[in-house]
Amino acid sequence: MGYSTYKKLTALDPVPADIEIAQAADVIDVRTIASAIGLSEDVLELYGKYKAKVNLSVLDELADREDGKLIVIGGISPTPLGEGKSTTTVGVSQAMGAHLGKNVFTCVRQPSQGPTFGIKGGAAGGGFSQVIPMEEFNLHLTGDIHAISAAHNLLCAALETRMFHESTQSDQALFRRLCPPAADGSRRFAPVMFRRLKKLGIDKTDPNELTEAEISAFVRLDIDPSSIKLQRVLDVNDRFLRKITVGLNPTEKGRMRDTGFDITVASEIMAILALTTGIKDMRERLGAIIVGFSSRGDPVTADDLGVGGALTVMMKDAIMPNLMQTLEGTPVFVHAGPFANIAHGNSSVVADQIGMKIVGPEGYVFTEAGFGADIGLEKFCNIKCRSSGMKPSAAILVATVRALKSHGGGPAVSAGTPLPVEYSKEDVEMVENGFANLERHIKNTIGFGVPVVVCINRFKNDTDREIETVVRLSKAAGAFDAVPSEHFAKGGAGAKALAEAVVRACEAKADFKLLYPDEMSLEDKIRKLSCDFYGGGDVELSDEAKAKIEEYNKLGYGKLPVCMAKTQYSFSADPKLKGAPKDFVIPVRDIRLSAGAGFVYPLVGEMPTIPGLPTRPCYYEIDLDPETGRVVGLS
Amino acid sequence: MGYSTYKKLTALDPVPADIEIAQAADVIDVRTIASAIGLSEDVLELYGKYKAKVNLSVLDELADREDGKLIVIGGISPTPLGEGKSTTTVGVSQAMGAHLGKNVFTCVRQPSQGPTFGIKGGAAGGGFSQVIPMEEFNLHLTGDIHAISAAHNLLCAALETRMFHESTQSDQALFRRLCPPAADGSRRFAPVMFRRLKKLGIDKTDPNELTEAEISAFVRLDIDPSSIKLQRVLDVNDRFLRKITVGLNPTEKGRMRDTGFDITVASEIMAILALTTGIKDMRERLGAIIVGFSSRGDPVTADDLGVGGALTVMMKDAIMPNLMQTLEGTPVFVHAGPFANIAHGNSSVVADQIGMKIVGPEGYVFTEAGFGADIGLEKFCNIKCRSSGMKPSAAILVATVRALKSHGGGPAVSAGTPLPVEYSKEDVEMVENGFANLERHIKNTIGFGVPVVVCINRFKNDTDREIETVVRLSKAAGAFDAVPSEHFAKGGAGAKALAEAVVRACEAKADFKLLYPDEMSLEDKIRKLSCDFYGGGDVELSDEAKAKIEEYNKLGYGKLPVCMAKTQYSFSADPKLKGAPKDFVIPVRDIRLSAGAGFVYPLVGEMPTIPGLPTRPCYYEIDLDPETGRVVGLS
Repeated sequence: MGYSTYKKLTALDPVPADIEIAQAADVIDVRTIASAIGLSEDVLELYGKYKAKVNLSVLDELADREDGKLIVIGGISPTPLGEGKSTTTVGVSQAMGAHLGKNVFTCVRQPSQGPTFGIKGGAAGGGFSQVIPMEEFNLHLTGDIHAISAAHNLLCAALETRMFHESTQSDQALFRRLCPPAADGSRRFAPVMFRRLKKLGIDKTDPNELTEAEISAFVRLDIDPSSIKLQRVLDVNDRFLRKITVGLNPTEKGRMRDTGFDITVASEIMAILALTTGIKDMRERLGAIIVGFSSRGDPVTADDLGVGGALTVMMKDAIMPNLMQTLEGTPVFVHAGPFANIAHGNSSVVADQIGMKIVGPEGYVFTEAGFGADIGLEKFCNIKCRSSGMKPSAAILVATVRALKSHGGGPAVSAGTPLPVEYSKEDVEMVENGFANLERHIKNTIGFGVPVVVCINRFKNDTDREIETVVRLSKAAGAFDAVPSEHFAKGGAGAKALAEAVVRACEAKADFKLLYPDEMSLEDKIRKLSCDFYGGGDVELSDEAKAKIEEYNKLGYGKLPVCMAKTQYSFSADPKLKGAPKDFVIPVRDIRLSAGAGFVYPLVGEMPTIPGLPTRPCYYEIDLDPETGRVVGLS
Repeated sequence: MGYSTYKKLTALDPVPADIEIAQAADVIDVRTIASAIGLSEDVLELYGKYKAKVNLSVLDELADREDGKLIVIGGISPTPLGEGKSTTTVGVSQAMGAHLGKNVFTCVRQPSQGPTFGIKGGAAGGGFSQVIPMEEFNLHLTGDIHAISAAHNLLCAALETRMFHESTQSDQALFRRLCPPAADGSRRFAPVMFRRLKKLGIDKTDPNELTEAEISAFVRLDIDPSSIKLQRVLDVNDRFLRKITVGLNPTEKGRMRDTGFDITVASEIMAILALTTGIKDMRERLGAIIVGFSSRGDPVTADDLGVGGALTVMMKDAIMPNLMQTLEGTPVFVHAGPFANIAHGNSSVVADQIGMKIVGPEGYVFTEAGFGADIGLEKFCNIKCRSSGMKPSAAILVATVRALKSHGGGPAVSAGTPLPVEYSKEDVEMVENGFANLERHIKNTIGFGVPVVVCINRFKNDTDREIETVVRLSKAAGAFDAVPSEHFAKGGAGAKALAEAVVRACEAKADFKLLYPDEMSLEDKIRKLSCDFYGGGDVELSDEAKAKIEEYNKLGYGKLPVCMAKTQYSFSADPKLKGAPKDFVIPVRDIRLSAGAGFVYPLVGEMPTIPGLPTRPCYYEIDLDPETGRVVGLS
């Protein structure tokens, strides 16, 4: 058991900057990592010396092998600084590997370059628990997010242009262009056009045989501009793109339209990447993306625009998870994206599945679910496990004394300003007061039928009494175990007790269950989440939201799960409502449909879908050292 | 001489679709290509099995080796279908390799995904003269263009946000955020801030020592919104982004602004990638990008925004050229981008330089310059060779009977509609009439002091009499030689005579010279190009253009070369003016400054900086074959 690439590291005190630790590490050739975990070079697409994409054919090759255990990592409702969930995911993996000698795989998400250059910095973990090389992890990686931006924006251009051409051309002119006659008068449909013809109930194969009415139905998507919720995307914190008017150039003949940009990780294509099970499935999902509705209320899809195949081609490499390594030589898959508030924020199904096959029945796969367990972990269970059939054996909930204090009456914590003094001196009562938040997360997670291990990600000013308080209360709340962990300062050695607790938890009986069945109505699903899970008192659906539910039911999307777009800072829709609030109302402003990803997403309150930059963003510190050529200042 | 990977191909008649030829090819592992040309695996960053980035350290390693000969490939003013310049670049390389046994390297540009999914299709060459694997070439490649989009849009977000923060905060508040005091009251400048301090003449190193006036000067960039010419970029044909209003969301507090998107290849960062000589040089160029001017008229740069280092970090991999191969096993560098009309549209300096070192003194490097020789080749000489000191030994001008006919009175040619019948039947007179266009290109190119070989890229309907006419007239116009070539249908075998002509031309005496000296005034440079080179009668500078010239002179940019943004379809600013028009006026609407790239670019007439999509774009045919997983329909 265990892989030959494992190695224990020598931690330093004080802990150097993340990038210094990462750059001082002896990085193993990714081919060596692959070989150690039993992958042949045939299934690798190398991207430099330390990253490789792994072909999904591995899933077929290892089909007969029994899966390893899957442990999902969620957390307390975080402060804006983040409570070290990625760091814990890496740390416990390192402990499970080099210290307990088990087969282990870590599945984390590719960071968005918005936060990397904005406020929060990168997401490779921190201290002595990191994915390396951290520069390659935090910068373009292998281009998956770039591929999503490119595909998504092609879809938007296709939509916008089609509306323009329909507004300026007759049915016959459109048809002549869509199916141009050859010199001999013969015409053909492009293969993708048969998808639209089928939807229209037309089974003819020769364009010349279409009636005028059929031609009109075929060429005229007749998209109602007011029905379009699709926005363009960029992976950058550019707040001025939140709301824009496009089409102002005279060449667009006055056909201007209000729209906006989302951050790329919120793209439906990102959700599809995370949830798809393979190329054929991805092709169908991408083609099924709804870009808007016709004036008669029919959904118009990417395939109606003729672009579903091209999107698939643009995403054909992105579907392969990216193999990297931790500081202690354990294998890592980096795949799909963050932002569990406005997206589902989980690593990909295929990464988890390949990881479970590789580690085998005695092995462990740690997979990270973004933000607090009310959103990332909930979506992991109700969306990702629902569609894939995966079942976690245990869950880790990451908490910090800092976050507990912020829920227990501590002053506001914000990025870029010094932490108030309350967070560096002992205050057991404040921790006790804040525990209500963690307690609800523990109980909610137990509700999924899995044993919960609380990890207290220990900071240097945390006192023993504060830590002991969290341990005691967590166990009283029903946690399988609660363990302080020092993986930031000590690497895997600091998370050994946590890993041991996870091993024991995985031996306990798990009986994974979803929070709601497919058959439950959309409104009841939203209510179930809002009241039973978040602990609120009621749901307030806007008229628009009610109308959408009716529309989605009519169109046959009523059985989809819901992906709530909600703040990560509170169980409620109000980020200022800390702890475990009650009786709050969840206001659902609108409900959008991601037919390709396979969920509807209620918009709860006002959530910006593209962040802004602070006055002094992270990029001020980032540069190349002119002497060594190395990256400096990346955190 | 010659590389071990060379192989002659077996051409088929009729010629299959490009993608079928490409996919039927036996692709060589890029490590084998690298080894054959003498590169060790240490200098490679592999991207899959068939692409690798090559570290610039090769330039130092091979510093003592004598350079090979550099041959630039330009062309006749093209039709919208393109006259096969990329195909010729690949074809003549294949001939020089497998057929003449010489060391040869091909330098082409990464295609933009705008045309790939829009009208024109990919740019890997065509028929039996292609860069392979063509899907990898035409799709994301190794992410260079994506990196440019990401860096460029971070710069735009930084600019926009800084203006926002300056408009809402006092000097002191800005300063407190830019240089936040630590718990002990100490403060520090980020390293990049010293660049701004130096520009302001402040040599203090402790933020606490700045006077109020110095603080104000330091924090307040005071950008005049009307001075901003920088637009965001996307690599997609999205015409609705040509002109937009941003900042309409209430969070931006009414600070809306009109702006737009350019296609990514037109980004100054692309020009920098093409012209830079190494990481340190790129760092300085990126920091020097001017994003706008203060209300006092001072240029505000990327380094003033604190983002020059981060841009460099985002571009650190993109600077390495991408090694690929042709169908006949010759090595190819793919680097930098196209669009010689609105950009300079040349392959990169570092790719050409490394290529010349690798092939050595008896070898040949072919480098492509976009569109007609009035723009791409002119910019190759006056911009790329000027700054790098490179000197071509010969030039190839690619012409087709089709393009000659279009200049000789033939009906309009447009993409997506069948070619008028005039282009498929013999018409020697029309060819003779159209020769005036090619003649001017030949004479212009001879003016750079290099022997000119005309390549007539032969299509199957071209008659011997038409071809002979072009040969005869080209020689009479002063061409060193003129050779019909059938590399599309026959691969390298079809371009053997062309390659032999190039070998002879390179033995002839070349005396490369620029068209104008640095010292010539900006206005005279524009006039020189417009009248002496394009053949126009006069230049008409708008008041804005005149004011810009004055401003750039004052700021010390008067010695820069000019990069004309002009239509590729005519010597004039009117795309409909075919042949070799005279007495036309070149209207210069505005002149922009690319201080980082090192040129000014006059805007000649109305040039869209982001193309649109037709009613039936290429993407209709593109998909993955569900059985084989292969890409279909890419052209």
